[in-house]
Amino acid sequence: MSATLSDLSVIAKAEFRGDGDCLISAVNTLSDAQAGEISFLTNSRYLKELDSTGASAVILNRDMANLCSIRNLIISDNPYLAFALIASYFADNNKPVKSGVHASAVVSDNALLGKDVFIGANAVIGENCKLADGVHIGAGCVVGDGCEIGESSELSANVTLADNIVIGSHCLLHSGAVIGGDGFGFANDKGQWIKVPQSGRVVIGNHVEIGANTAIDRGAINDTVIHDGVKLDNLIQVAHNVNIGKNTAIAGATAIAGSTRIGENCTIAGGCGIVGHIDIENNSHVSAMTLVSKSVKSGEHVTGSLPAMPHKQWQKNLSRLKKLDELTRKIKKLENQ
Amino acid sequence: MSATLSDLSVIAKAEFRGDGDCLISAVNTLSDAQAGEISFLTNSRYLKELDSTGASAVILNRDMANLCSIRNLIISDNPYLAFALIASYFADNNKPVKSGVHASAVVSDNALLGKDVFIGANAVIGENCKLADGVHIGAGCVVGDGCEIGESSELSANVTLADNIVIGSHCLLHSGAVIGGDGFGFANDKGQWIKVPQSGRVVIGNHVEIGANTAIDRGAINDTVIHDGVKLDNLIQVAHNVNIGKNTAIAGATAIAGSTRIGENCTIAGGCGIVGHIDIENNSHVSAMTLVSKSVKSGEHVTGSLPAMPHKQWQKNLSRLKKLDELTRKIKKLENQ
Amino acid sequence: MSATLSDLSVIAKAEFRGDGDCLISAVNTLSDAQAGEISFLTNSRYLKELDSTGASAVILNRDMANLCSIRNLIISDNPYLAFALIASYFADNNKPVKSGVHASAVVSDNALLGKDVFIGANAVIGENCKLADGVHIGAGCVVGDGCEIGESSELSANVTLADNIVIGSHCLLHSGAVIGGDGFGFANDKGQWIKVPQSGRVVIGNHVEIGANTAIDRGAINDTVIHDGVKLDNLIQVAHNVNIGKNTAIAGATAIAGSTRIGENCTIAGGCGIVGHIDIENNSHVSAMTLVSKSVKSGEHVTGSLPAMPHKQWQKNLSRLKKLDELTRKIKKLENQ
Repeated sequence: MSATLSDLSVIAKAEFRGDGDCLISAVNTLSDAQAGEISFLTNSRYLKELDSTGASAVILNRDMANLCSIRNLIISDNPYLAFALIASYFADNNKPVKSGVHASAVVSDNALLGKDVFIGANAVIGENCKLADGVHIGAGCVVGDGCEIGESSELSANVTLADNIVIGSHCLLHSGAVIGGDGFGFANDKGQWIKVPQSGRVVIGNHVEIGANTAIDRGAINDTVIHDGVKLDNLIQVAHNVNIGKNTAIAGATAIAGSTRIGENCTIAGGCGIVGHIDIENNSHVSAMTLVSKSVKSGEHVTGSLPAMPHKQWQKNLSRLKKLDELTRKIKKLENQ
Repeated sequence: MSATLSDLSVIAKAEFRGDGDCLISAVNTLSDAQAGEISFLTNSRYLKELDSTGASAVILNRDMANLCSIRNLIISDNPYLAFALIASYFADNNKPVKSGVHASAVVSDNALLGKDVFIGANAVIGENCKLADGVHIGAGCVVGDGCEIGESSELSANVTLADNIVIGSHCLLHSGAVIGGDGFGFANDKGQWIKVPQSGRVVIGNHVEIGANTAIDRGAINDTVIHDGVKLDNLIQVAHNVNIGKNTAIAGATAIAGSTRIGENCTIAGGCGIVGHIDIENNSHVSAMTLVSKSVKSGEHVTGSLPAMPHKQWQKNLSRLKKLDELTRKIKKLENQ
Repeated sequence: MSATLSDLSVIAKAEFRGDGDCLISAVNTLSDAQAGEISFLTNSRYLKELDSTGASAVILNRDMANLCSIRNLIISDNPYLAFALIASYFADNNKPVKSGVHASAVVSDNALLGKDVFIGANAVIGENCKLADGVHIGAGCVVGDGCEIGESSELSANVTLADNIVIGSHCLLHSGAVIGGDGFGFANDKGQWIKVPQSGRVVIGNHVEIGANTAIDRGAINDTVIHDGVKLDNLIQVAHNVNIGKNTAIAGATAIAGSTRIGENCTIAGGCGIVGHIDIENNSHVSAMTLVSKSVKSGEHVTGSLPAMPHKQWQKNLSRLKKLDELTRKIKKLENQ
């Protein structure tokens, strides 16, 4: 499988410089690339590696292209995007296409399977499910009763969908993801917790990616909703009735409490905690390991992490923090004098 | 499946006002409820929605009942509890009852199965297990050797129990939960880690709920113990020899290190870290994303999170934090002058 | 299965005092041990329990041995190590050895299986896998295509390996671990996220232990690498292209972002966040719930947690933190006066 530099420039929505007929068959890093491979430069830190790369061509932006003596280039305003498009071209072409239902899979008689559906070994598909054309269910997955999965969506091995989950088209759910566990809802009766039934669904849009071991709970009455283009990393907790807007990306180990709304095109870094019943508006950004306890306005960037210090420095400073109020009062007194 | 308002008031341990014969068949939110449905008001924020709700009846407290022009009411001192009881009534009646062992399940010959046990497709039950009456094992679960599961307890799909795990009655374990992995115990031999065998069990009481992808490690020698009525949310880490007291509830993504004891009726919010070998006494409360590094006294409420700020404000203030000790010394000097 | 005190001293690389022929058949805690069992004292807190223990022998260090009236002792400079070695001796001898492929497992025809391989019920082994002698694959595991697993390595039940994963010898992966999910890599095209194919592998060395529900992503182009002797606890997130050096131990619920390098013999406590593209050098230590946002020098100990306080104290002090910059400026003014 190979393509000419000229063809790749079309795939990358970019222009090429040099030999348009140069044949490329793979992507690689600058330091490891060999003849026949294309590499990329998206960070000026790696500029030095341009001199010694064995790549037959390189993807970069115009400024760097003008500093570079390599003959064959793909020039893009967004070289990381150009790289993603070219790498996807090679990856998609090298991916083995699987279809058919493995003999060991347990598929309910009344499941509706589209064309070219793949169901792996020991997977289980419940009653009244609809799997659209090209759906790929990995080995060991369990799809509960009444689930719908849209065209070309893929569940990696050992994914679990509870009952009545809706997944759009072109989604990718990684292993260990659990969609539709009960939300954490209990009423307190003199110390004893009484379960509040969780009868909503989880509804996931198109082009959503969900990382390994991420858990998305079903809604209590209404649904938990993940809109088109959302990207969730690994080990994320999404509580009941959360609503995540289009194209928002959330990094690993973040936890979102119940009924919170996150807008479109937000980026939330890893290890964050977001309390329940608040609004994170469109285009906002949350830094790593921040606890968000109030709503965030559109476009705002909030941070609440403590910077790591050498342990001794931390001991000295943080012991003072417990008396910051007292300290502030002392200063007021001094000012009054 | 429906019930009269009068019957529902008995179920909810509450009183009714209005037409006791009014037939109700489901619960719903104030904004979505239609005729034949009952809704609830537990938060005065939603008071406005009372005017426009299509619900045939509403659950609320006496104060709000007196402000409200709706005819049919369930009046309770604890409307959320009343709602939970009524919603459970409808949910339990609508839940399909499954029993029998699926042909694809692998159940050891010497397993003891009670009446009406359900074992789903491709589940695996090891040697010498005892499953009491009404136990439900979801598809893809693996129950190790020597496990005991009490009456009416349910494992959702793809739950894993290691060997010799004890689960009480009326428990619910959500998908991806792992009970009985080895505790993280290693002795250091000149840089190399030597494993300390983890031969204790995990012993879980009655009416315990465990969230998706939560992990509870087995004890090193003694057992890890989760008492009756404990509720654990998703993605929680419970290390070896932790002991969690009755009716304590812990929210998602919290991690508890080894040998720590948590008392009864505690509430621990999400994203917390609790160090090993400490005591969190009865009725205490830990706020979200707090690191608890010392024991907590009975009834105490501890907090250790940093509030999120606009990023620029954070940059200004947190850079000062690293010099808080110096600042405190300066103030002492000024005071001495 | 039992051993003499004298034999156990050899196993523990330690010396014994008392009756070398005393027969021991198990380890136990000081408070629970009975005749025929050996216990251990590694923490002076438990010194009192020596007087009342029923153990036939005790492992401790020389100082404590000299204070102790118990006749039979194993004396070691590192009593926890001595305990680990003796406990392992008993545990290994009591462990049932399983081999053979369960009838319900689905093993690709072209898989290469070594001697004494065990494959549990409903496990799935993909195309072109190599499982060395003594490999143990638990029930419900899915091993993707092209994986290699070294001698005597064990996957507990319901572990998932994606395609082309390499695991060394004598490793132990706990249930729910997911190795080789896609790294979280996307290029942004005017708001829409375009997936960057993740075609690297995960390569894991020898004697590595990986906790329950931990996720290790495959590299983007190059591999994610976990070196010999690394110990990872539960619910850890290891992003693409992370490299973790020999004998480093990481506690539960820590998350490591992409391309970060962690050196050898580091210890990282639980609940930490480590940003991407940094270097944590050899022998460094990170305290619990610390966000590491810059590289850490060899041997350094960094901390960035906020100590928990009584909630009211926290309210008073943390509200001041938001004005710490202003406070600092006031003090400068006062000093200038």
